Amino acid sequence: MAEHTAASRLRLSGLCFLLQILNILLFAVFVRYSPEGSPGRCPPQLNCSRRNEDSGFQQPPGFQDVHVQVLLSFGLLVAFLSRYGPGSAATSILITAFAIQWAVLIQGVFHFFLNGKIYVGAQSMVSADFCTAAVLISTGAVLGRVSPVQMLLLALLEVTLCTLNEYILLSLMGVSDSGRSLTVHTFGAYFGLMVSRVLYQPHKDKRKREEQQDKGHQTDVFAVVGTIYLWIFWPSFTSTTAVHHNAENWAVLNTYFSLVASTVSTFILSPVLYEESTPRMVQIQDATLAGLAMMGMAGEMLVTPFGALIAGFLVGLISPLGFRFFTPVLHSRLKIQDTCGVHNTHGLPGILGALLGTLLTLLATADTYGYRLELVFPLVAQGSRTVTDQAFIQLSALPLTLLFAVLGGCLTGAVLKIKVLRCSPDAQYKENAVFLEAAEEGSDPSASGKEELGISTLV
Amino acid sequence: MAEHTAASRLRLSGLCFLLQILNILLFAVFVRYSPEGSPGRCPPQLNCSRRNEDSGFQQPPGFQDVHVQVLLSFGLLVAFLSRYGPGSAATSILITAFAIQWAVLIQGVFHFFLNGKIYVGAQSMVSADFCTAAVLISTGAVLGRVSPVQMLLLALLEVTLCTLNEYILLSLMGVSDSGRSLTVHTFGAYFGLMVSRVLYQPHKDKRKREEQQDKGHQTDVFAVVGTIYLWIFWPSFTSTTAVHHNAENWAVLNTYFSLVASTVSTFILSPVLYEESTPRMVQIQDATLAGLAMMGMAGEMLVTPFGALIAGFLVGLISPLGFRFFTPVLHSRLKIQDTCGVHNTHGLPGILGALLGTLLTLLATADTYGYRLELVFPLVAQGSRTVTDQAFIQLSALPLTLLFAVLGGCLTGAVLKIKVLRCSPDAQYKENAVFLEAAEEGSDPSASGKEELGISTLV
Amino acid sequence: MAEHTAASRLRLSGLCFLLQILNILLFAVFVRYSPEGSPGRCPPQLNCSRRNEDSGFQQPPGFQDVHVQVLLSFGLLVAFLSRYGPGSAATSILITAFAIQWAVLIQGVFHFFLNGKIYVGAQSMVSADFCTAAVLISTGAVLGRVSPVQMLLLALLEVTLCTLNEYILLSLMGVSDSGRSLTVHTFGAYFGLMVSRVLYQPHKDKRKREEQQDKGHQTDVFAVVGTIYLWIFWPSFTSTTAVHHNAENWAVLNTYFSLVASTVSTFILSPVLYEESTPRMVQIQDATLAGLAMMGMAGEMLVTPFGALIAGFLVGLISPLGFRFFTPVLHSRLKIQDTCGVHNTHGLPGILGALLGTLLTLLATADTYGYRLELVFPLVAQGSRTVTDQAFIQLSALPLTLLFAVLGGCLTGAVLKIKVLRCSPDAQYKENAVFLEAAEEGSDPSASGKEELGISTLV
Repeated sequence: MAEHTAASRLRLSGLCFLLQILNILLFAVFVRYSPEGSPGRCPPQLNCSRRNEDSGFQQPPGFQDVHVQVLLSFGLLVAFLSRYGPGSAATSILITAFAIQWAVLIQGVFHFFLNGKIYVGAQSMVSADFCTAAVLISTGAVLGRVSPVQMLLLALLEVTLCTLNEYILLSLMGVSDSGRSLTVHTFGAYFGLMVSRVLYQPHKDKRKREEQQDKGHQTDVFAVVGTIYLWIFWPSFTSTTAVHHNAENWAVLNTYFSLVASTVSTFILSPVLYEESTPRMVQIQDATLAGLAMMGMAGEMLVTPFGALIAGFLVGLISPLGFRFFTPVLHSRLKIQDTCGVHNTHGLPGILGALLGTLLTLLATADTYGYRLELVFPLVAQGSRTVTDQAFIQLSALPLTLLFAVLGGCLTGAVLKIKVLRCSPDAQYKENAVFLEAAEEGSDPSASGKEELGISTLV
Repeated sequence: MAEHTAASRLRLSGLCFLLQILNILLFAVFVRYSPEGSPGRCPPQLNCSRRNEDSGFQQPPGFQDVHVQVLLSFGLLVAFLSRYGPGSAATSILITAFAIQWAVLIQGVFHFFLNGKIYVGAQSMVSADFCTAAVLISTGAVLGRVSPVQMLLLALLEVTLCTLNEYILLSLMGVSDSGRSLTVHTFGAYFGLMVSRVLYQPHKDKRKREEQQDKGHQTDVFAVVGTIYLWIFWPSFTSTTAVHHNAENWAVLNTYFSLVASTVSTFILSPVLYEESTPRMVQIQDATLAGLAMMGMAGEMLVTPFGALIAGFLVGLISPLGFRFFTPVLHSRLKIQDTCGVHNTHGLPGILGALLGTLLTLLATADTYGYRLELVFPLVAQGSRTVTDQAFIQLSALPLTLLFAVLGGCLTGAVLKIKVLRCSPDAQYKENAVFLEAAEEGSDPSASGKEELGISTLV
Repeated sequence: MAEHTAASRLRLSGLCFLLQILNILLFAVFVRYSPEGSPGRCPPQLNCSRRNEDSGFQQPPGFQDVHVQVLLSFGLLVAFLSRYGPGSAATSILITAFAIQWAVLIQGVFHFFLNGKIYVGAQSMVSADFCTAAVLISTGAVLGRVSPVQMLLLALLEVTLCTLNEYILLSLMGVSDSGRSLTVHTFGAYFGLMVSRVLYQPHKDKRKREEQQDKGHQTDVFAVVGTIYLWIFWPSFTSTTAVHHNAENWAVLNTYFSLVASTVSTFILSPVLYEESTPRMVQIQDATLAGLAMMGMAGEMLVTPFGALIAGFLVGLISPLGFRFFTPVLHSRLKIQDTCGVHNTHGLPGILGALLGTLLTLLATADTYGYRLELVFPLVAQGSRTVTDQAFIQLSALPLTLLFAVLGGCLTGAVLKIKVLRCSPDAQYKENAVFLEAAEEGSDPSASGKEELGISTLV
């Protein structure tokens, strides 16, 4: 068994080395800083994404917030779910570090390519961050059942497909999805679920489940920190790509209202579904995520605050119901395991957000939007599209994204099943066991439970 | 007893449902986004608060920081004090989620009401955050002795009274209190203390005290994180409502200087008061809070940095003395329990800050302030008030705020004592016990101590 | 022994009192807010540092981020290494609180002095933060082997010497070092190492080492949080003093690219050096720090992204090799103990960064830099210096800084060895033991391991 482990270790080391050298070479050949003075501005000759062209802003508002968001929310989300000790957080950081470089390259080919060079700037980093977020959502579905090597390949493939999907939706079809309900949340969730389906291994899972049974409430520390970060930074995340200052402002406010309503919802449903007086912090975190994913597309389209309250209220009720009733069905009938429950926190709210966005597009009139129509639906404002056309396109983007995610997930899952890439189940068990032992040895008995989540009551 | 617990759970669930539906209905009827292009700007016809009218800024500087502050500082403050397991942090989030919605409504009625509609924007959210901060300070005084249902009602009433107090002080009387020494710190602390007085239950408390005796230093992790956040984000918090960029800048710097001085003070006094070589992190956090509350009103009025150093130095000495000598007297003589010591970290420093502000108002001259006089004391600069008048008004705002807080706290405490609202003491015990058991079951023995604070040496 | 401890406690208390009174008096006599409207702007008559004069910005971009950075990164870095319980984090806060005040004074004498007064503003606070960062790096080398009293004196002396070094390099010699590779990272690291050398006590160390052997992986929680903060906030830290928006933007992007590459490097080397499948979070944090220190000087000079990738990649390989092979040599041969490994994370990367900066200066042409030449190398752009001269000056700044750091460290170490200042070894042991006992008493067995780091595999 020792050779297995050693080989697995060196395989990861070697793959990291190859990918990093590849990245350096590709950067050396293709990537340059934007020739304009300001690296953030998109030069007029470049095939920038539609929204950036319109705005021509220099430094994307909230650049740092996006970065904060990607790393904090997902990083922590993944961290506290890590049932296999510290290794899981480390892997998430590796995935982030690789996916950002790769996304800068791939997104650059689609959006910032000119005369054989990719011109990067702050905007490239923001786009890369969004793409990395989709990858981290996907890994949330398969966490604990794939090796770091497989995760790296998942990131390699998903970044490519996610960018393609985003390019078709945002640039070719002209879909308005500033908070990425579709291209990040829905795509990431269903991509990960399909990979999980393809890699399904019934026996292994049972053992994991049993391991979970005896986990306590200690991860609530992480959940508290995670929830607070989501509250603080995500509203800016949702609205980063909203072009104009004013449109952004409404998106931020709508996101806050959705957030508070979905949080209150959790307190309504939790005592009914589970025999607890107040919900556990993990449930509040899930509701927060759902309320945020809901506002991805609709955030800049809602023209009244109570709409955001109602949307957040409903999704805050649906998400816990999904955990209680739908996740078990997903597992037993469809053989899809969902480690972090990304279907309930990203997939379903993303779809609902897209449907809400379609509805709001239908209701959009020049009267209610005023000059904001130009910002939210530029093609409608320019007269090249009717509101009904736009709504139809918004709606058709949903099945398209689902199709991309499902096909891409199947493809990726098939690739990850290739013998060479995965460890034998035994070796992988061994490896995980090594993690656990490493976490336990030389420390008091309480150490091993530290990073583990007691989602037993949720699943 | 099981029925008691079940009834208590469903009571919270039902109350959340009712309040959220009420909020949605009120929002649907009354609340609209500001009709102007920029939702942050206050339309000229609206009865905005004085300071906003003057400035006419689009996006309040530091909007996000305030949000950060409210949730982080108080959230963590409350979190690490939570002696009843994870339930306490969850409750704080619920209170925040509800109070923000309610404060947007109530503050809107006073400040942003026009033609039967409330026009909200980023400014509304900032005001609502301030109000929520006052509520969280109050809950700090009664934490562990009231149920979530009672806390919700406390928030409902306190938001209303706090807004009324703020309206009278800032809009009607023209008091300068940009960092809210009076309307947030003093009001919140004494309101909470009065509620605590009305709800005093001697027997119960003794048992709590014993439970605390055996808590360790583990909560220092929370205190470290909390202190660092306070250092980072609060200076912006204090200066958010300072109108102009320049005035704000001095407020930020004064707050930093007050902060460092009060921190050093703790290291001076702690070895004398307690037999410890260095103070515990909780004490440093308290000194930080006191140093910050002190600069609420005076922050933008101090024209020399050493003034801030002296003020921080003194309040950093007074706050630990309060914990050591005044809190026990408060408890034994006045029968006021103060779970988190809000009197020493918010109440007393708030009063001292108001007195310092009055003194500085007396000393204000057009010569030393220059064009900043217009920003800090607009009525004085316009000639409609002398400096002495302004100082008298600043001073008279203090007893008025105390009166409001004490009467409001008595009223609220009386309401919370109504039989229907509170659990019977037994049931409540039971419920807390359930929390504790929930935290302990299925986890190693160290879990239960995780969220608990060892303030035994402080009280 | 009890008297020893009591005397030691009161000595710290008294020193804090004296230093704070001294600070207040010096502030009262010398420090005023900048007489201009904006406290952030440097009045033209003042002898501001060159870069500020050029820019004339009002509020330094990223002021808050620097503060975030100084406290969070180093604070947490130090916190999670604290092998002696909560006292260590408290001491770091004290050092920060004192060093900021002192640095405002000392830096003010060099940079903001006019007519016998020091005029402070936001820029003063940023400079003071940088200086405090150098002090915290130095304390990282000696942590656990000096008392708080000694640390305060170390801060007192280092701030003075660091400011002198910075003044000579940046203002007199015209070195470009916007991210402070030399003046913060290199200076801080070698200063601390020399202090550590002078204070070397062979016996004591052995006991410490044994204590470390049995620490577990629990501190990874701190390392996860620390790493995420570094990723989020440091890129802004590096570029805070980069004058212009555009130059800053490139510095931020280069820092990000260096960061991701050095993180991937850790995953390449860790399985080879240690028998672990994925690196521990502490190692990732170290690589992150090294990748960041590397970009200090070179960040704004790199004109292609792949340069940053290569630099980060290489330093990410060198830093773990240093931990594995160089730190033991440093200890056994040179008798320099390095508690937190600051040589590998700050010292060596700082030197490499300076060498890279020199190389890039040689390659700088008006053609590749465009208008940015004016911002990065103002003297070259003005024609008063050739590129070769500038490169020579950049290079000569390195030995000068090392000389300053080594001499200053020796001097400081010698001062700290004065009998009156240090506790007798026994008393100090006693004191540390008190910390440990305090952390353990009244809590479950797992508490004592909480703040301790298992760097046994690294050393």
